Order: sequence, then C-alpha cells, then structure tokens
Amino acid sequence: MANRKKKIPVGILGATGMVGQRYIQLLENHPLFEVAFVAASPRSAGISYADAVAGRWVMDTPIPVVAASLTVYEATDVVAAADRCRFVFSCLEMDTKEQIQELERAYAAAGLPVVSNASAHRWTSNVPMLIPEVNAEHLSIIPAQQKHYGWKSGFIVTKPNCSLQSYVTPLHALMRAGYSIDRVMVTTLQAISGAGYPGVASLDIIDNVVPFINGEEEKTEQEPMKIFGSIDDGHCVPRTDITISAQCTRVPVIDGHTACVNIGFAGKKPTPEEIKEIWSSFRAKPQELDLPSAPRQPIIYREEENHPQPRKDRNNEKGMAVTVGRLRPCPVFDYKFIALSHNTIRGAAGGGILNAELLVAEKFIR
Amino acid sequence: MANRKKKIPVGILGATGMVGQRYIQLLENHPLFEVAFVAASPRSAGISYADAVAGRWVMDTPIPVVAASLTVYEATDVVAAADRCRFVFSCLEMDTKEQIQELERAYAAAGLPVVSNASAHRWTSNVPMLIPEVNAEHLSIIPAQQKHYGWKSGFIVTKPNCSLQSYVTPLHALMRAGYSIDRVMVTTLQAISGAGYPGVASLDIIDNVVPFINGEEEKTEQEPMKIFGSIDDGHCVPRTDITISAQCTRVPVIDGHTACVNIGFAGKKPTPEEIKEIWSSFRAKPQELDLPSAPRQPIIYREEENHPQPRKDRNNEKGMAVTVGRLRPCPVFDYKFIALSHNTIRGAAGGGILNAELLVAEKFIR
Amino acid sequence: MANRKKKIPVGILGATGMVGQRYIQLLENHPLFEVAFVAASPRSAGISYADAVAGRWVMDTPIPVVAASLTVYEATDVVAAADRCRFVFSCLEMDTKEQIQELERAYAAAGLPVVSNASAHRWTSNVPMLIPEVNAEHLSIIPAQQKHYGWKSGFIVTKPNCSLQSYVTPLHALMRAGYSIDRVMVTTLQAISGAGYPGVASLDIIDNVVPFINGEEEKTEQEPMKIFGSIDDGHCVPRTDITISAQCTRVPVIDGHTACVNIGFAGKKPTPEEIKEIWSSFRAKPQELDLPSAPRQPIIYREEENHPQPRKDRNNEKGMAVTVGRLRPCPVFDYKFIALSHNTIRGAAGGGILNAELLVAEKFIR
Amino acid sequence: MANRKKKIPVGILGATGMVGQRYIQLLENHPLFEVAFVAASPRSAGISYADAVAGRWVMDTPIPVVAASLTVYEATDVVAAADRCRFVFSCLEMDTKEQIQELERAYAAAGLPVVSNASAHRWTSNVPMLIPEVNAEHLSIIPAQQKHYGWKSGFIVTKPNCSLQSYVTPLHALMRAGYSIDRVMVTTLQAISGAGYPGVASLDIIDNVVPFINGEEEKTEQEPMKIFGSIDDGHCVPRTDITISAQCTRVPVIDGHTACVNIGFAGKKPTPEEIKEIWSSFRAKPQELDLPSAPRQPIIYREEENHPQPRKDRNNEKGMAVTVGRLRPCPVFDYKFIALSHNTIRGAAGGGILNAELLVAEKFIR
Repeated sequence: MANRKKKIPVGILGATGMVGQRYIQLLENHPLFEVAFVAASPRSAGISYADAVAGRWVMDTPIPVVAASLTVYEATDVVAAADRCRFVFSCLEMDTKEQIQELERAYAAAGLPVVSNASAHRWTSNVPMLIPEVNAEHLSIIPAQQKHYGWKSGFIVTKPNCSLQSYVTPLHALMRAGYSIDRVMVTTLQAISGAGYPGVASLDIIDNVVPFINGEEEKTEQEPMKIFGSIDDGHCVPRTDITISAQCTRVPVIDGHTACVNIGFAGKKPTPEEIKEIWSSFRAKPQELDLPSAPRQPIIYREEENHPQPRKDRNNEKGMAVTVGRLRPCPVFDYKFIALSHNTIRGAAGGGILNAELLVAEKFIR
Repeated sequence: MANRKKKIPVGILGATGMVGQRYIQLLENHPLFEVAFVAASPRSAGISYADAVAGRWVMDTPIPVVAASLTVYEATDVVAAADRCRFVFSCLEMDTKEQIQELERAYAAAGLPVVSNASAHRWTSNVPMLIPEVNAEHLSIIPAQQKHYGWKSGFIVTKPNCSLQSYVTPLHALMRAGYSIDRVMVTTLQAISGAGYPGVASLDIIDNVVPFINGEEEKTEQEPMKIFGSIDDGHCVPRTDITISAQCTRVPVIDGHTACVNIGFAGKKPTPEEIKEIWSSFRAKPQELDLPSAPRQPIIYREEENHPQPRKDRNNEKGMAVTVGRLRPCPVFDYKFIALSHNTIRGAAGGGILNAELLVAEKFIR
Repeated sequence: MANRKKKIPVGILGATGMVGQRYIQLLENHPLFEVAFVAASPRSAGISYADAVAGRWVMDTPIPVVAASLTVYEATDVVAAADRCRFVFSCLEMDTKEQIQELERAYAAAGLPVVSNASAHRWTSNVPMLIPEVNAEHLSIIPAQQKHYGWKSGFIVTKPNCSLQSYVTPLHALMRAGYSIDRVMVTTLQAISGAGYPGVASLDIIDNVVPFINGEEEKTEQEPMKIFGSIDDGHCVPRTDITISAQCTRVPVIDGHTACVNIGFAGKKPTPEEIKEIWSSFRAKPQELDLPSAPRQPIIYREEENHPQPRKDRNNEKGMAVTVGRLRPCPVFDYKFIALSHNTIRGAAGGGILNAELLVAEKFIR
Repeated sequence: MANRKKKIPVGILGATGMVGQRYIQLLENHPLFEVAFVAASPRSAGISYADAVAGRWVMDTPIPVVAASLTVYEATDVVAAADRCRFVFSCLEMDTKEQIQELERAYAAAGLPVVSNASAHRWTSNVPMLIPEVNAEHLSIIPAQQKHYGWKSGFIVTKPNCSLQSYVTPLHALMRAGYSIDRVMVTTLQAISGAGYPGVASLDIIDNVVPFINGEEEKTEQEPMKIFGSIDDGHCVPRTDITISAQCTRVPVIDGHTACVNIGFAGKKPTPEEIKEIWSSFRAKPQELDLPSAPRQPIIYREEENHPQPRKDRNNEKGMAVTVGRLRPCPVFDYKFIALSHNTIRGAAGGGILNAELLVAEKFIR
C-alpha cells in the first residue's frame, strides 16, 4: 500500500456532475492521488460535497467518506485550488466553450496542470487529445504549449469524446501493425449516463431509442483524426487519409457505449485470425509503464457470437478495457465488428485518471 | 360497414404465437376477413383459443371475443381448414424449414392460398416475396407456380423478414424515381417482440444490448435482392447490382425496429430536397387500390432532428407506415438516414394482411 | 356522428405539459367538445401549439392537426379564453397553490366553468372532488359555491390525485353494497408519466425503484375521505370512519398505476364471490347517462392469477376502466387485492373529460 | 491472505443456474473456501463449466478462471462429490420437492454437510432455517438431526426465501431490543433475477409490473415464523404471536428486492429515534465472529427521503447489508418503512456462504 503522505493532492472541477461523481468514486483509495479540492457552480459553493450532491448522487456505491466532508469551492476559485492541489481534473460545464477555455487556461497559468474531459480545448492544436494506448507521444508538445502561453508547471491535456473510445484503440492496433484503414462506418448505441444528470428523461428512453445526440456524430467522425495525427513543430496535425461516417443513437442502457463498426483497408488486408491476434496481444505505453489504472489487456476479443454486451462486458478490467467481438467479413467494406467500452470509466473519469497517471510517469506532473 | 355475411373466412396457422396473436388482434373488425380457423401445435389442439393463450397473451388489448371461443386445431389438419376457411395466414414454427415448406404446400394443394410470414419459402424462386408497395407485380408468377405444382386455387406467397421493412420501401421509392443505389450499410436496433414469446429473457436485455440475432443479418442483406428482382419465365430473378451490409442488434424496445442506413448512388444523385419529396409523395399499388390496411402515406418523413423513435412513431398510420428522418450527407457514401417500422404490424401480421388484401383485389383470392 | 357545429368549444390551461398533451390527444374527434383555446406559460405564448410542444410531445400518436395550428395564449389571459370557449380544463402548474387557486377563481368569475386536474382547490370545502362513478351527487354544492363567490355560470370542480383512482371505485362499490370498510393499507407502484415531463430522470429509474413521491402518500390517504364524504349545507364533509395508510413508489412503467390493497371490514363481511359480483356488476351515473367517455364496465375483474398488469390492462375500456384481480384473504385484515388504472387517462385527462361530460349532462355546463 | 493450501474444498449443486453462477462468482478468491466440485443436470454432465454455461452466464463479471475449467458432474453423483469436497452448497432445482429432499439427505448421509438454498427442507422441523444475524442459536439442533438420521459429519441447514431477507433482520433487531411486534403488512417489489434464467420473459416485464410470483407470498408470510421460533427438544417450534400479510410483485429491476413494510407493536412502542438507533447499532453473531462475508453494519439506515433504492443500495456492504429508510408513522398500524436487500447475494448465494462461514466458526464444518 502506498504511503498516504506521499499521495498527490488533486482537484476536481465540476465535481458534482455525473463525470465528477465518477472521479470521486474512482479516486477513493487511488494509490497515487487523493482528492483534496472539489469545485462546482456557485450554488454548491461553501457547502459540503455530501450536501452538494444530496439527492443527485447517481453512482451505485456510497459517497466516499473523505470526499463527503470536503467543502465545495466555486470553480473559478483558482487561488483556493492552487493552495490545495497539484493538478486538476476538469469536467467543467459552462455556458460557452470560450468560458471553459478561459478558465482552464487560468488554472494552467496558476501552475496547475489541467487534465480535461471537456471538449473546449480538444481542437486547440498545441493541446494533446490523449488516449494513452494510442498517442502517448503527443505529450511531447506540452513544452511548446507552455512556452507559447508562458506557463511554467501548468499545461492542458484533453481526452476525446466517450463515443469513439470503443473503436479507436482497435483501429490503432491494426494500423500500428502495418495495415492502412481508409474508410470506417460506425453506428453507436450509447448509454444514458453519457448525457449526464438529470440528462435523458425516462419518458424519452424507456421502451425507446433516440436516434440523435447533439454534436456527437461530428465528434465521432473528426476527433480520431487528431488522435491518429502527427506532431509537427509543437502542434498536432490531424490525419486526413481516413474517412469516418458515424450515426449516434441513445438506447436504454445505463453504462457502456456499443459501436457497430465497418472498416475498409487501403492496400493489404489482414486475415480475421491476424486481426484477433493483433487485438489480443496489443499492449502499449500504459501497460509498459504498469500504470495503476491501465487495463492489463487493453483490447479483449470475445469469441461468443452474442458479445460484447454493455451489461456483461462494460466492467471488464474494471471498466478500462475495450471489448470487441463478432469480427466477420463485410460485403461492402472488408470487415465488420462490434466494440464496447464503459463510457463513464474508460470514456470519461477512468480515462482522465489514466492520462494523469501517464503524466506523472512521464514527469509532466511532479 | 361491410356486410358480415360476405366476409371471407380465414385461418391462422401458428395462431397462439406472438405473430399469430397480432393477427387475431388486427383481424378483429376487419372489413374483408373474419377469423374462422385457428391452428397451432398438438398441445393446444382441441381447447379454446382463450385457453390456449391463457397466461401468454402478450397484446395490450384483450383477446377478441369471437376468437376467444374458437377451438384450436392442429396445424396439420388441412382438411378441417379447408372446411372452414378460404385461405390461411401462416406463421408456422416447426423444427425444420422443410416441414414448414411441406405443410404450406399441403394447404396450397388443398386449394387454400397460403399468405405466409414464415421464411421457409422465401427463396423458392416461383414464390413471390411481397411488399405490396414495392413489388406487387411479382404476383404475376402465381399462375406459373400453380401450374408447376398442379394446384388450382391454392398458391403460396411470402413476405420478407421484419428487419428490412423499414428501409426497403424508402430505397425502392428512390430507385423508382430513377436513381440507382449500389451500396447500403445498415445497422438495425430491433425490438424484443421480434423474437416471439417467451423470446428474449429479461436478464439478457434490461440495461443491455445484444449485438447478435441468429440469421438476421443474412436475411437483411439478401432478401431485398429478391424483392427488388425481376420476373423471368415464372420465376423471380434476384437483383445483383446492389450490395448490402447489415449489423443487427437487439435493444430493450417492445415494438418497432430502427435502422441506421447509409446509401451510395451509382450515377446521378438526388438532392436532399428531392429525396424528401420522393418519399413524401410516394404512393403505390395499395394506395391506388385503397386497400383497407394500406397506409395513406406509406413513407412519412419527420423533420424533427430526434425522430423517428420507436415508441413515438411505430404506430404511425396504425403501424403500417415507414417513418424516416435525419436525412443528411454521409462522408463515406452519399447519404445517411434513420428508418423505422412496426415489426409485428407492418413487419409481420399487418404486412401479411395487406398482402391478402392485395391478393383479393387482384382476384387471386376469390 | 354529432354535428360539428354544435360541439362545445373548450380551453386547456397548461396545454403543453404531460396532462395537457393527453387532453389534446383524447379530445381529437370528441363527440361533444372541440379544443378552441390552449394556454400555457409565457414562454409558449404567441406561437403555435405545434411549435410549443416541439421536441417535448410525448404521446405515442401524432399531434392532432387542429390543435397543432392553434395559437398558444398565456394562461392568465382570461379574456381571450372567455372569447373562445365555454369552459376550461385546468392542468395548471404554477409556483404556489395560491396562484393556481386565484387563477382558477378568475376563470370562474369570468363565467367559465373550471374542470380542474390541479390539486389547489381539492380541499376547498365548497368545491367538489369528483369521480363520477362515486360521488356524482357532490355536484349539488355547485350552486352554493357560485352563490358564495358571486359567480353566475362559472364554478370550479376538481378531480382527485391519480394514485387513488385504481382502488377508490372498488372500495366505493363495496360500501354502496352495504359493507363498511374501516381500514385500508395500500402500496402503489406508480408510472413515470405521473411525474410529468421531463419528470423522472432515466438514470433514477431504469433498473430501479424510487420508494418516494413527494406529497403522494398524504393525498392517497386523505383525498378518499372527501370523495366518500357527505354534503351538508353546501359543503363537503369528509368521512372519518375509515383509515388509510399508503406507501407510494415509482417504478419503470410508462403508464398505469398499480395498487396492492389490504382492506378490513367493520361489521359483516362479503364473501369473495359476493365481492367479485359487486365489482363486475357495478354501474353508476356515467353508465346510466351513457356518457361518451364512460367505460361500459367501470370495474373489470380478471380471474388470471397474474393480472392486472399495467402494460396489458391499462388500456381496458380505452383507459377508463379500473382493472382488479387477485382477490384473496388477508391474514391480518380481511381481504387483499390488486387494482390498476391508467394514470394519465382515467387518472388525469380522461377523468377530467368524464367530469365535464357529466357536468354537461347535468346542465351545469350549457 | 489465507494460505491457499488450507482452503476448504466445496461443491455446488445446481452450479449452472442463476444462484449457482452467483456462488461461483462470490467464491472466487474466498479466504476460506475454494470451489472443487460443480454439479448440475445430466445434460451438463461431463463437459467443462465454461461450456455448460456458454451463452447463459448472466453475471456482470467474467467466469472465474478456476471454475471455468472444472468438469461438471451430475448432481446425483454423491460419490464424486465426497471425493472432491468437504461440504456442498445446494441450489438444486428438480421436478419435485421430494426429489430434492432425498438428494440432500443422500449428501448428508455421505458425510457432507449441505448448506442449502432450496426450499425443500425449510419446513423439516429438525433442519434450521438460518439467518446468522437472527437465529444462529438454531444450529444447536444439528446434533439431534444427525442422531435422528444416523448421520456422522453430514447434516442439512437451509436459508429462507430471498423475499423476506430485507425486513426480517430489522424486525428481529426491534424484538431483540425488547419490543413485541404482532402484525406486519408487507408489499414486495422483487427483481427479475429472483426468477432465475431465462426466468421472466422480457415481453412480460419491460414497461410492466407482474403482481404475482408463484408461492412467494406464502413463504414471505410463514418462513419468518420458523426463523423467529424457539428450539425445543431438537426441533424448531415456529412462533405464533405474529401475523404477516404479504403481497409480492415483480418489477423491472435486475437485482435487489424492495419491501414496503407496515408494523404494529403489542405493548410498548419505540420512538422513531429509538428504532433508528436500534437498527444502526445492531450487531450479531457474524459481526462478533468477524466472518469473512459478514457486513460490518448489517442494517444501514439512510436518512434521504428517497432511499433505499435497488440500483443504488443493493451493493451496500458488498451486497450483504440490509438497507432501510423512510421510517414514519403509520395511520393504521404504528410505523411504516422501506427495506431492501440484494436478492442473489444476501438473499441467496451470499447468505449461503455466510451460513457456511458460521458453520465453520462454530465447528460444525471442519
């Protein structure tokens, strides 16, 4: 067991929302981090975290005792944060993207690294959009980012949208193995927790499907281009030789986004056996560094014809694995398969924590 | 109101199952047909229909009074059927496809037209697979079928699988308007009622998605080829210039199959406005003949960005319309859209009834 | 078919909410009434009804064409209402009970009878709380109410809470037959539509039960006392010789409140056969007057051991019947049984319409 | 960590069913027990456990590796069991109660203690029906049972039905504190997992409630009498001074039975504060012995007005706690409250494991 004294104190911006709650839950007993600062909107400021989430705590485990008694600060109180923690997780929700950008920059300027779930800075070219198994090397642009803004220890990294988490790592594994994918069709069946709380009204989703999620298809189509992109002169240059078309739907599932994926290769094609072997043996930076939240097996292939299923596979590797199944030929492209990941663990808070663990291992957070 | 005396007495084979129940429900007060014969497996034979479905009636309206008191016959009792009705709806479930084929042929040989929901004869080349709005002209092969088998008044027509009902008519409307579609990707989100009763276990589908339905993707990819096919010398010749790739999933929805569709055109492409106009103004044989179960508007386009939805759109036009929405450009093909139809009405019993109404109007059933 | 010219023009206050939408749906093609005025909060005022409910229409049939094009007025615009309709249905939601009371009185003062679903005036002693099958004679206090307030044609009647609709009529039938009930335990399993829209968050109710509904247990325990009460000098005097204890829970059901009821008799007890006979043969004022929305059979007893069920019984008699089942001895009291009614039809809009039909038949609305 | 060598090898009869799967899941990494023998019906015999549950494993974690490779034996193969394990958990399902009784006796006769979840022996007067927090002293009849049957090391203990697990411990805590309860009304809202797999058809429970569970109300009313009973001459004598009336319903919840309870006291009544204090401070034998599966706090009282809720409270204390809330006066009896427990953990496999741990601690299993 890690010595409690040495844990890094962390802050959570937007701590009372759905993703914030998941951070609080996952960071209980974390070996490296301890929650020392929680911040939210002005109406929660000044009261205890337990009071702030009373009646709206939606996790299926109780509020951790330590977090319950923390006083909630206003998210704009950068000074209070700087006194209490060494970096912050941001799951801010504000009226405009610009407000979030500005506030995240204020934290970085105050010397606090910002590990963000928010979409505000995802397309800022000198801010990495990180999946540690896919593009850990994008962290190399952080010094240029710091230099550009004149920041010393502070910086910003983001993570991508939850909708693409299930299929981007499997695609990357194939590309890393030398196969070029040039076209992707994906239909997602997304869980209600992705919409936050209160989020989706029960009258809209019980015995129903909603075939639309605002802004989601655009993110699902475009964000992989930056993640798969290259680094040039301190900036990330998105890839342009892959085209993705996405249809995003909401289904009555609590946690776990499912993606039905069709892929086409440019050039040589792997056999199904090769694909399964590539996925099953795939290991990357988080596994090499043995990060605390890293799934031992990042991509799990299930041979059963009716898997992956959200309720039965979302918790694989504590919700940090991607589970894939039903690889088969596609009459139009080359292959089709089903991919699944836990949207509020791997796709949100768990993914953010893994990012922070990588930043510690790589000495960006000290 | 039609004179009750003149109604055509009909039989239902497999009357106690899910689709059989829907037939019983929809045929209550039908202007042309009255249920005069119900048949099922040996264990239901000899008791009243009400007793046969006790504890397993899953419709949300009570068992119609007339049907409740009918005695259930064994499905193999062709003689009893021939005494009591002029044609039969078949939703037989038997151990093998061959058994169903044989029994359906026995009914036809006994002079009874068989309007079938079963898949057994869908690929028999001289048996039409019918969607009245799409390929009513395929009925022209019935005389050749009768001649081949030596049947007089009896014959067999089938209807396609419920999974493709939502998108085949919209595709047909575009092709009829002169646009050639050559590639289609479709992911379906299918309702539990499609699996019959008891069908899907609640432990498998609450808070879950099952990304596999046995045999469904093959049907979804291949059956449209026959429906879109041409007639040659008393046989149906499937079309070969379209390729469809399907992924079929089961979701926690009671009724209503949703399809997320991507299409590509060969040659000239319609504009979005043209497509919507083609769909909204589409009328075909059932509308021209004003068949009792024909939807006045077979394809309804909804402009709201979050429609069609199964619970809110499945009952459009009494469950007989296809509802379409979210037409938008596809970065990989040309367009993508969402389509929805009621799987046990339009996709099963209602579709079968419409087939029979067309057969009456066209004098195949007299 | 009634002559359209002679239909009574009616208004709906709170027309955009859940219950308001149900009124709009049920009044399409009503033989006596036509919707001529719709009112809601200021933010909907001045736009069409279709626009006002865009994205929040939750019925499973389309918006009726006539209603869609009506302009929405502000609910406080009594003058506009008086120009356009002869009485109003009130399903107002406002910040305080006093505001609703005041506004409903303003409508009555303007000469418009108010048939209210709101709880504001339920305990005003000279305002009837009406279930037409139970206490139609309470209408006799309307003249005293009008005299007290100095109203001419206007007045206010209310209907009780949806939670008690399922068991109050069965209790009444037994009491009317001469059996005294003195103690009742009831646990309700209530549908999400009872909470309006957006109402219950999906994250709170999928795979869950919420054992609390604000204010519901008090209403469930107390309102029957007024309904069962007597009339004295223009006021309703609640009954005091029955005690009810209620536990109210929310379950993942869209429509249909289920009640598990235990009852004890003071004095002689009917046999189970007598109870079933009393219920099955029960007819009251709405049936005698053959009101358009009256269920032919107000209490349906189902002998199947696993009924009533919300999804399969809520639509009995077009959602206006109470369905009862599982009558059996109670080891602690005398009997226990299950009762069910459709909460937004019988328990809300349908019940309000039946109230209005009774008021027309009894010449209170002319 | 316990030395793996010293773990007690255990068998599971009925290992492929719902409860059997839960045993397999919960016993992975158990400090005292290791699964060494799995048995089921003849059709699973001879294949691996993984193969036997393929396509029907319904837990939300993967099949434990050790269990996956065990060969499944026929449940009647007592000899094989005796070679491989020191005692067995029985969750047998057979055609008749007598068959289960006979087979459980055969195991006991072979020297194997039987820790049973089955209902077959619950009313055998010299077999304890055990909740370790309530009636641990009932184990004292085991020697008499062994003597009666002529068994040496073998014996049978049972656990009660899952439906009563949520409220029996809270009632016991009050009675142990000196308050006499004489009447109880309880309505349960039970999870689908209680019906096993495939169990409840999804068409029967999505958007629905089923107000009937075969045999459940009788068990819920009568079993507490034996649990609360006294021991006389080697037999358990059921209590007769409490009357319970139960209504049992099935709701669309995966795990976790909720009970709405009304209680009346004979003689002095505790205040609400006293009740809460009694519950919160309640500790019993499993806590005193610090059994591995014992909840540290067996009864958790939640002050939030909308708890306990199945999805949010079923996992309290790893699914072994009872969670109680909403204590309030009852107008008919004295108090009402809501109680909840995890039906397949505390109410089934977890409860069985706790029974076995107590039997080890008390030296009945050696």
